[in-house]
Amino acid sequence: MAGGAGTRFWPFSRQNFPKQFHDILGTGSTLIQQTAERFEGICPQENIYVVTSREYYDITREQLPFLTDDQILLEPGRRNTAPCIAYACFKIAKINPNANVVVAPADHIILKPEEFRRRLTLALDYSQNADVLVTLGITPTRPDTGYGYIQFDDSDDQEVKKVKTFTEKPNLEIAKMFISSGDYVWNGGIFIWSMPSILKALDNYLPEIADAFREAQPHFFTEGEKEALDIAYPRCRSISIDNGVMEKAENVYVVLCDIGWSDLGTWKSLHENSEKDEVNNVVSCYSMLYNVEDSILKMPKDKLVVVKDLKGYIIAEHDRVLMICPKEDEQLVKEFVAKAEEFGKHYI
Amino acid sequence: MAGGAGTRFWPFSRQNFPKQFHDILGTGSTLIQQTAERFEGICPQENIYVVTSREYYDITREQLPFLTDDQILLEPGRRNTAPCIAYACFKIAKINPNANVVVAPADHIILKPEEFRRRLTLALDYSQNADVLVTLGITPTRPDTGYGYIQFDDSDDQEVKKVKTFTEKPNLEIAKMFISSGDYVWNGGIFIWSMPSILKALDNYLPEIADAFREAQPHFFTEGEKEALDIAYPRCRSISIDNGVMEKAENVYVVLCDIGWSDLGTWKSLHENSEKDEVNNVVSCYSMLYNVEDSILKMPKDKLVVVKDLKGYIIAEHDRVLMICPKEDEQLVKEFVAKAEEFGKHYI
Repeated sequence: MAGGAGTRFWPFSRQNFPKQFHDILGTGSTLIQQTAERFEGICPQENIYVVTSREYYDITREQLPFLTDDQILLEPGRRNTAPCIAYACFKIAKINPNANVVVAPADHIILKPEEFRRRLTLALDYSQNADVLVTLGITPTRPDTGYGYIQFDDSDDQEVKKVKTFTEKPNLEIAKMFISSGDYVWNGGIFIWSMPSILKALDNYLPEIADAFREAQPHFFTEGEKEALDIAYPRCRSISIDNGVMEKAENVYVVLCDIGWSDLGTWKSLHENSEKDEVNNVVSCYSMLYNVEDSILKMPKDKLVVVKDLKGYIIAEHDRVLMICPKEDEQLVKEFVAKAEEFGKHYI
Repeated sequence: MAGGAGTRFWPFSRQNFPKQFHDILGTGSTLIQQTAERFEGICPQENIYVVTSREYYDITREQLPFLTDDQILLEPGRRNTAPCIAYACFKIAKINPNANVVVAPADHIILKPEEFRRRLTLALDYSQNADVLVTLGITPTRPDTGYGYIQFDDSDDQEVKKVKTFTEKPNLEIAKMFISSGDYVWNGGIFIWSMPSILKALDNYLPEIADAFREAQPHFFTEGEKEALDIAYPRCRSISIDNGVMEKAENVYVVLCDIGWSDLGTWKSLHENSEKDEVNNVVSCYSMLYNVEDSILKMPKDKLVVVKDLKGYIIAEHDRVLMICPKEDEQLVKEFVAKAEEFGKHYI
């Protein structure tokens, strides 16, 4: 899933160049490239399908040159994850109605890919012959209020746990209770299921979406695919797979993982997941820092940035936009983007 | 005089593009262009001579296209203002030994050009038939410790005053005394004299510099000029015309001026001379400012800059360098430049 155009990393992440296409940690590969690499040994490249927005076709081809046009699924609009997943599943089902499917966001990081592959293999083994929907549950390391939580049944010693409830972003008090109870994990947004299981679940819980794509399915892998999507998408409401399916289904299981996962959803999480200097700065460019601490400099690489007397700031620049903002005010970035649009579409 | 490569406005002013070639106030013309325009009606364009460094030949031609190559005097090295003025005077003397000469820095601003021309005309009238060295004295508006001061004899009502002393940058206490005494003005670095007077003064007070250029003079306006300068310049010590001549000569006069002058030598003076918003910010680009006051944003014009919670800062960017520094620390900019050179010549 690579269709998002989140604004939280603006000005770095932009409408025409969102987060998943950035080398946001400065590691040498972009988040979508890292996501693809992560499946080496699990899924051959010819079986990787990327669902994204039509406007990101060129960047996708460029960053993942092994993809054929058949493997790049272009959504005509954004309808959250359920239609995105339905499209991909109905398309893949056309050529392999018994495929084992892994759904993964293209903009997360996983610092322990070996462990990820081990846990994923377990999930695939569990799901391939059973009518179950499996998700990866991330062992929480703090009472983060930005994530969804999954409560699991810990009554037996099975490696794959039955899910009891999904909870969206809780408040801090509840998050702390979740952590101390020991039977909650973070919802990593990574799903594993067999094709029959997910199609059945879509039919059960999101029948109008399932119908829309089932009717479009005969046109997939043909020249009529684009036109069929232009009919199917407007029929779908915008809904996440979590809300639409996972929270309602009875056959949901979770594999607990400690895989160094982050959805890199905030500047704070970027700061946490990046290498820091001795005074806690994350720096992506040439820099001369005087009395600067606990800050993020996310700048073009060849830029020299001189800063004096700033603590806890985000200094971020990309393509004609510079933002200098206290880290603790990062929730304002959404407002900034809305306002920035007044200066011109190319600033957002 | 347009040879300077001052570092005080770094990163805006750069080794390969110093201050005089910038439209530093955002008025639509650069400082050297404004300086040339300022002489309209006083000096025909064919009589304007620009002394600069060889590396600025191209920018000078581009910004002042009316100049012929004979009018662009290229110094092989920097030796402060005395050799610069000696070179220009000996060159002009070759074709007009009785020229009336005005010497002016190319990087100052004068907000009242009409008044400037009136006072300059007075100085020219006074100097053209007398053996005097005239300077423009700027009516001081505050006890600035960054300027030189000229004490004048106020004992008669003459419009052109006899100079008693020159004082370089005084401390604040002394500067305050100067202002309250009423017989001190700022040294604007603009000089007016007849050719015989300046050549005589150079012979008297800087004979080795006068000799160096007198020996080079036969080659001026010929193909041998460059070679002659390569011999003359190393013979000259680095010395200002103020130290070398004006402070020593007995025949120095000053014309008091209230012409809206600034040497734009500091970010503070740039701030003072620029249009400000209602909370005292000077902004040269698209901006969204939240709780930002008393700051300077000197950025590329098409840039959108979002800033939150900064007061009294300089935010300046030019060609791959961004500086974010409290205004009160602007004296550190020299250190920044020295350090920046370690990252590469193109950053300074």
